[in-house]
Amino acid sequence: MSGSMPPGDPLPDTTFGSRWAPLPPGAHELDPATLAPGFEAGSASAGIKHAGETDVGVVRCVAGGVASAILLTANASAAAPVRVCRDDLDQGRVRACIVNSGNANASTGEQGLADAVSMRDAAASALGLEPREVAVAETGTIGVPLEMERLLGGVEAACAAVGAEGGAGFAEAILTTDRFPKSCCIEADGVTLSVQAKGAGMMMPGFATMLCFIQTDALVSDPELELRRAVAGSFERISVDGQMSTNDTVLLQASGESGRELPSGLLDAALLALALRIVADGEGATRVARLAVSGARSAGEAELVARTVGNSPLVKTALFGRDPNWGRIAQAAGMALAGEELPELGPDRIDALELAQPTSEPEIRLDLGRGEASAHLFVSDLTHDYVTLNSEYTT
Amino acid sequence: MSGSMPPGDPLPDTTFGSRWAPLPPGAHELDPATLAPGFEAGSASAGIKHAGETDVGVVRCVAGGVASAILLTANASAAAPVRVCRDDLDQGRVRACIVNSGNANASTGEQGLADAVSMRDAAASALGLEPREVAVAETGTIGVPLEMERLLGGVEAACAAVGAEGGAGFAEAILTTDRFPKSCCIEADGVTLSVQAKGAGMMMPGFATMLCFIQTDALVSDPELELRRAVAGSFERISVDGQMSTNDTVLLQASGESGRELPSGLLDAALLALALRIVADGEGATRVARLAVSGARSAGEAELVARTVGNSPLVKTALFGRDPNWGRIAQAAGMALAGEELPELGPDRIDALELAQPTSEPEIRLDLGRGEASAHLFVSDLTHDYVTLNSEYTT
Repeated sequence: MSGSMPPGDPLPDTTFGSRWAPLPPGAHELDPATLAPGFEAGSASAGIKHAGETDVGVVRCVAGGVASAILLTANASAAAPVRVCRDDLDQGRVRACIVNSGNANASTGEQGLADAVSMRDAAASALGLEPREVAVAETGTIGVPLEMERLLGGVEAACAAVGAEGGAGFAEAILTTDRFPKSCCIEADGVTLSVQAKGAGMMMPGFATMLCFIQTDALVSDPELELRRAVAGSFERISVDGQMSTNDTVLLQASGESGRELPSGLLDAALLALALRIVADGEGATRVARLAVSGARSAGEAELVARTVGNSPLVKTALFGRDPNWGRIAQAAGMALAGEELPELGPDRIDALELAQPTSEPEIRLDLGRGEASAHLFVSDLTHDYVTLNSEYTT
Repeated sequence: MSGSMPPGDPLPDTTFGSRWAPLPPGAHELDPATLAPGFEAGSASAGIKHAGETDVGVVRCVAGGVASAILLTANASAAAPVRVCRDDLDQGRVRACIVNSGNANASTGEQGLADAVSMRDAAASALGLEPREVAVAETGTIGVPLEMERLLGGVEAACAAVGAEGGAGFAEAILTTDRFPKSCCIEADGVTLSVQAKGAGMMMPGFATMLCFIQTDALVSDPELELRRAVAGSFERISVDGQMSTNDTVLLQASGESGRELPSGLLDAALLALALRIVADGEGATRVARLAVSGARSAGEAELVARTVGNSPLVKTALFGRDPNWGRIAQAAGMALAGEELPELGPDRIDALELAQPTSEPEIRLDLGRGEASAHLFVSDLTHDYVTLNSEYTT
């Protein structure tokens, strides 16, 4: 058996290349390595990941002021760095973030917590900041103690290397098994927004973590509100395998130095584009579908149906197999609404025809026909490479 | 890439061969083709499935009395035969059941409903029964109208062929892409119990349906209670891919002719053994794991964690890959309990070591450490063959 399907269009290979995430009108793209004015970054190789690869990164705001917000995974097995950011960070005034991409520091007990604090403190000291101004994010192997000597050497080197030109190095240093970096820098109305993300590559020993760092020189009066809204429309609308990581972290830092407000929709557009890059880089993914559910009685019902259909392995293999299989969609939707009365779902209510087309970005539409609420989800396909990536590693 | 993993013990190939489902003490197995006294079955080829294969089956009780119970899928996209059984069947007095295994008659609208009624009525007429005494079950392609002329010919032929020797033919006629028949007949304390099931073979165009027919000459005073309890401990404890079919049906018929009560545990043991045969025949399955969750605050919490861990594609690929990856189990459990405080889950609380052993039936234990409730689930692995089976068919 082979891992390949009949060839079709490849997935888009640029940040704003997806049909669902165009560059907003009036905005233009800068070199993705560019950092918003007032921000610096650095990176180093601590020898935690693989020999020679950078695995520690730091980003900081050097402007006079900063407004920030951070969103963290709700996973009850949250990693040590997530707990530190949750409990011991001035979330609205985050000056810097220190990241390692070799060890998730998850399920590592009290020692792991102490290590995350040490890592954070070392960065704060090297950057001349208060510990509560510094966030910490980690991704990589889990259940393995950090090699603190190596790591602290990397933290020191990364902090010593910070500069305005450090964006590309930082975007590389946060990756794990991602096949490509995920960063962009866009400008609109005199405001600059730069973003670096990492996504759904397989993590040894086994799961994807999403990290995202956003910098802007715009004035953002309520960063948490802005960030929650933009994440709800982007990272919360994607699924590779329905799994929630122990380490997911999204940080927004705004310096306000431009003296201008963040143009409406700019953050949303950038995060949606990067979210789609994460799905396109999902483990083994060859196609990304947009699943649109309408006619639901409530937003929660639409969401439940979208998640149940979008995460169904039968629907995901049909996406891989270019099979316009509306029966699997009817079955999964019926499972989501088990026990309820539902108008029968047939081809008049389910449009799955694009699944059979060569496009790498098909749309699937499902009308439940019993209300006005809707929801959508972007999902990758379930492929032979997914099984290979996730079964051929042994801890 | 290859579809095979390093060889290990093969899955058990007899009904009571699983470590988790031994033949109960005092019981002995008869030829699985045997029907309990007082029951007859017949089968025929209507040409709905493939040329030459039988695809219509009927089972009936010829004893003086009958007590019965039927359990039907809760899927909101339930197929026409399920709706007919739900709305127009004397569920406590089911004399016979007519089955076709070529067409699920799901998502087929008003015509599908009328066709299911016609099929049922034809069987009732041929058997000299009232329509409300006859159940109807179907499995196969969905969204495709029944070819009624062919089907009714098959119904007539199957009903004409009924006899005490028809068990083997019936067990074959209800299969779809199952790799082997799933039937058994056991005797204990002067009572006989015969069961024929079909399971998780891939259904064109795409999903598994579980059907199960149970006959006994025991006295069963509350068949619904008996059946619900036995199904809760068997078919409700298995998952191949977390998907609920539109056609699942389980029917228990008891004639009472032996004049003896059903020995305690006999039905439970038979259904558990057949449920495990269904998982072992899951699409592409090479291994079956028993996942035991303990230390939960409530039965619902234990169940939620077991389902979330057991249906995680990361856990299922680790099962395939013989990877004792407790980190994926901690992550999935943490996702199930997102937002809650949980004692950290490490190797002291997660025993996944059997995943690395050559056994085809490993056990995984997870202790949440915060309560007294527990739950377990039997799950198959996620393999290359699963992806092949479900992606290489095009509707």
